[in-house]
Amino acid sequence: MAQNIYDNPDFFDGYSQLPRSREGLDGAPEWPALRAMLPRLQGLRILDLGCGYGWFCRWAQAQGAASVLGLDLSTLMLDRARAMTTDPGIAYEQADLEQLDLSRHTFDLIYSSLAFHYVRDLPQLLRVIRAALAPGGRLVFSIEHPIYMASMQPGWLTTEDGRRVWALDSYQIEGKRETDWLAKGVVKYHRTMGTLINALIAARFAVQRVEDWGPTEADLARQPTLAEEVDRPMMLLIRAEAALRP
Amino acid sequence: MAQNIYDNPDFFDGYSQLPRSREGLDGAPEWPALRAMLPRLQGLRILDLGCGYGWFCRWAQAQGAASVLGLDLSTLMLDRARAMTTDPGIAYEQADLEQLDLSRHTFDLIYSSLAFHYVRDLPQLLRVIRAALAPGGRLVFSIEHPIYMASMQPGWLTTEDGRRVWALDSYQIEGKRETDWLAKGVVKYHRTMGTLINALIAARFAVQRVEDWGPTEADLARQPTLAEEVDRPMMLLIRAEAALRP
Repeated sequence: MAQNIYDNPDFFDGYSQLPRSREGLDGAPEWPALRAMLPRLQGLRILDLGCGYGWFCRWAQAQGAASVLGLDLSTLMLDRARAMTTDPGIAYEQADLEQLDLSRHTFDLIYSSLAFHYVRDLPQLLRVIRAALAPGGRLVFSIEHPIYMASMQPGWLTTEDGRRVWALDSYQIEGKRETDWLAKGVVKYHRTMGTLINALIAARFAVQRVEDWGPTEADLARQPTLAEEVDRPMMLLIRAEAALRP
Repeated sequence: MAQNIYDNPDFFDGYSQLPRSREGLDGAPEWPALRAMLPRLQGLRILDLGCGYGWFCRWAQAQGAASVLGLDLSTLMLDRARAMTTDPGIAYEQADLEQLDLSRHTFDLIYSSLAFHYVRDLPQLLRVIRAALAPGGRLVFSIEHPIYMASMQPGWLTTEDGRRVWALDSYQIEGKRETDWLAKGVVKYHRTMGTLINALIAARFAVQRVEDWGPTEADLARQPTLAEEVDRPMMLLIRAEAALRP
């Protein structure tokens, strides 16, 4: 079973203070780029893996989705999502992405925001997702960027001549990373860019778009701290299609 | 026109001392991984972009290729390649990858080793390559890794607690990088991982494999300095197919 850090009260309290929790999708700077990767949602059967408060589920339903299912491991998250949702076309269920079981050809779009880096066996999850997509269905997801994940002690350094640089190491050493973010000992899994993309291809996805997310000029004007994202990307966005050919 | 740094005598002299120049393919640690991406060469029409001394061309011909054409901008390189080659099935020609013109559906495999990072307009080159490949043909290439290319002043730093880290910055700032490698002012072009992969997809390639090259245990035993490649990758290897569908 995956670590259920979102049910840690300290973590949950911290998470609930983030702009992306309080303001929803518009509080996440990468949302416009991720939204631009989505197909037209009208009439689609949609699954959100790691739905959190359900912001995406409600937005998707408002776009005319046929049905929306949100899955999350955290009961605190699911309680909050249910409390914020009135539309009967949206369902929430508890599920562990490490042990996911889905019916074949059930969804037209599977979406996930910043959840896959918590998953140890991502190749297995991708096979389950692929089988659950209808032919030609899409997977659109964000994940912590390999550059951001790699370092054993991630952080910024200042060089002797005063430049701020990101301290990169251990890029090729895949596997567990423990970091302190909102709570101590949050467990994530680093994979190289190649490992991630090859896992998609091995699961019979056609990779359609890859974005190392970075801020626009307007983003920087609104939120100057995003300048860090110019120097080293924190998020990777990917769109892949359940390829029709074998 | 691209910078013709390989015709700079200082650069050429330095380059000719590298193991990959003196020993050929086996002097390049990434060669086994790149070779593993190649299809069976028997009977294929092969193009090598940035052929250098022609090591790959001669090896491909020995594998039974139907024909091999090596292109390079450097006349010093081409002279050396011709002097080392006796097989009439191999031809060498001078060409600028910035202005490449190729006949349609002429090649089954287009190969390139560590040349594409010198190309300013890579999307245009990829369109030319795509059109020159027969349906189902392959592009297999290596390029300097975006992580290695990104920094404005690339290099290693030592942290206060004695760790060696790679100083990463400017990842999102694409475009020209001038570095001093064998000669002063070598011009390369940085692109993010996403930009590179999306350019392949836009040119109607199906991305089949992506490898951030890193050394094996045997590589490290033989050449301990390759430990740097564990901390930050220097090379990216990609295989893509001229997709049959539009």
